Amino acid sequence: MGGDNAPQVVVEGIEKARNEWSDIEFVLYGDETKIKKYLKDDKNITIVHTDEEVLGTDEPVKAIRTKKNSSMVRAAKSVKDGENDAMFSLGNTGALLAAGIFIIGRIKQVDRPALMPTLPVTNSPLGVNMLDVGANAEAKASYLQQWAVMGSIYAQDVKSIKEPRIGLLNNGSEEDKGDTLHKEAYELLSNTEEINFIGNVESNDILAGVADVIVTDGFTGNAALKATEGTATILLKELKKALMDNGFFTKMGAAIIAPSLKGIKAMFDTSRAGGAVLLGLKSPVVKAHGAANVETIFYTVKQIYDMLLNDTINKANTYFEKMQKEQ
Amino acid sequence: MGGDNAPQVVVEGIEKARNEWSDIEFVLYGDETKIKKYLKDDKNITIVHTDEEVLGTDEPVKAIRTKKNSSMVRAAKSVKDGENDAMFSLGNTGALLAAGIFIIGRIKQVDRPALMPTLPVTNSPLGVNMLDVGANAEAKASYLQQWAVMGSIYAQDVKSIKEPRIGLLNNGSEEDKGDTLHKEAYELLSNTEEINFIGNVESNDILAGVADVIVTDGFTGNAALKATEGTATILLKELKKALMDNGFFTKMGAAIIAPSLKGIKAMFDTSRAGGAVLLGLKSPVVKAHGAANVETIFYTVKQIYDMLLNDTINKANTYFEKMQKEQ
Repeated sequence: MGGDNAPQVVVEGIEKARNEWSDIEFVLYGDETKIKKYLKDDKNITIVHTDEEVLGTDEPVKAIRTKKNSSMVRAAKSVKDGENDAMFSLGNTGALLAAGIFIIGRIKQVDRPALMPTLPVTNSPLGVNMLDVGANAEAKASYLQQWAVMGSIYAQDVKSIKEPRIGLLNNGSEEDKGDTLHKEAYELLSNTEEINFIGNVESNDILAGVADVIVTDGFTGNAALKATEGTATILLKELKKALMDNGFFTKMGAAIIAPSLKGIKAMFDTSRAGGAVLLGLKSPVVKAHGAANVETIFYTVKQIYDMLLNDTINKANTYFEKMQKEQ
Repeated sequence: MGGDNAPQVVVEGIEKARNEWSDIEFVLYGDETKIKKYLKDDKNITIVHTDEEVLGTDEPVKAIRTKKNSSMVRAAKSVKDGENDAMFSLGNTGALLAAGIFIIGRIKQVDRPALMPTLPVTNSPLGVNMLDVGANAEAKASYLQQWAVMGSIYAQDVKSIKEPRIGLLNNGSEEDKGDTLHKEAYELLSNTEEINFIGNVESNDILAGVADVIVTDGFTGNAALKATEGTATILLKELKKALMDNGFFTKMGAAIIAPSLKGIKAMFDTSRAGGAVLLGLKSPVVKAHGAANVETIFYTVKQIYDMLLNDTINKANTYFEKMQKEQ
């Protein structure tokens, strides 16, 4: 059980979710003493004590191979063995990816799992899902097609969008834009009947809500995601500094406008969307932000619950099996 | 002479620059009647009338081949023929790139010219130069090395930075990060003695001023630049909306804090840096933003003047010739 504020926020979030959905059973992997310290009531909650820890600085694959009694490896094994249906973690993203691939395993016809967070958009509380944002530094056009299909099924099941608009992140909006990879991906996505492909999307439009799902290779997706996060963080920090460092009257003005600024803060808050899904694995695996709060934990459980209720992973599985037979 | 507010802002910016630097001679290519309408004094300014226009919607290479009497083609030819030393345009970026490559020509040892804008940073008025941000959808590691050398020389000459810090945009800060292209680029940059290579830079740190020059392939650079611009634009728009749409008291608060917000606006204003340079061509070629104002035009002239005074292009040329001889 990793994360900056674990286990307190995790335990509180889990208890909140347990109180909401009585048919979920939780198994918490981590330091039993620490978890018990925050646990008010163990109804539907089991603790499995683990005494090893995958650190943020660990080399992912090595950590998964050597730290057999870490919460991450134990949780992944339990999913592999069918003891649990899904897992989430606030810990090392690379290690979670490695645990997903090497312990839980990929959906057979999916070449590579993708990391898919939800980003805020200005015109809808549902946000936009972007994948892959960094699980794969190298990509092929066929991966992007697989991710588009899985992203589309996810948006239908978890966000209840009937025909999710799927966009391809590219360096221009015209259909002939891109390098070889993205031109090929455009072609493949255009010919994928099961998705509502709306064409190319440029990264200045990500937050404008022009698509429900944006497909991209992990290298570009990582750059676009981090540039978006970095710019928002720096701009809001500079704004705060400007309001606090300019004397009494500015502070007074800042106090007056504070309630209105909450709307912007709320727009950029995607905690209700849950965590970033590692799509393409045999079971739902979700990475919640290391700095996640109680709300995010609660909504991450809801997100996984929605995937399980809708059989989201199996739908993707069925699609790819059907594709394979037709080929 | 293209651009949203041309020729008025261009003519005004040129006159301002002419009044500042008496040893520059300007040749304006465009509609003579329209230019004359705004020109107060033609000292050191010649007008060459052109009656064709490269539009924003034109296919770049085709436009350059067919619109022989456009301001862009005429200006590029004049540089090629040595009548003028440099050119800048507010028009179609792709067409300017095509004119640069096919009319003015590349520095012999530079494989591809790169588009290099200046982005703001929080800790210096000099900003950060990023290249390539979209002239090349496909790149090789050797291109990134060439761009790093040229970016470094530019930062020394035009921004007076003694040992410019050169960073490589990558998907992590550790040296083993990246796809094959960026791992190769890391290796090449590490072994380039003439530059001060500081290692990998992630795109959430672009505006934090961790480097003076950031090298990237055109596809990723385009995504990072547009994500940065898009996020800043959307955030500032939402902020304005929040301050204006929430009644009298919020508006009053907004009026009080307005002077303090100017500091942020000033931070994000890079007009003093001039335009985006097409580095790698035989002469300085600069793309100023279509929506450039008089200040940007003035500083674009200064930027070109600095490159000419310092012989920036020839320094790059000399470096690459020396490299070739040593191989």
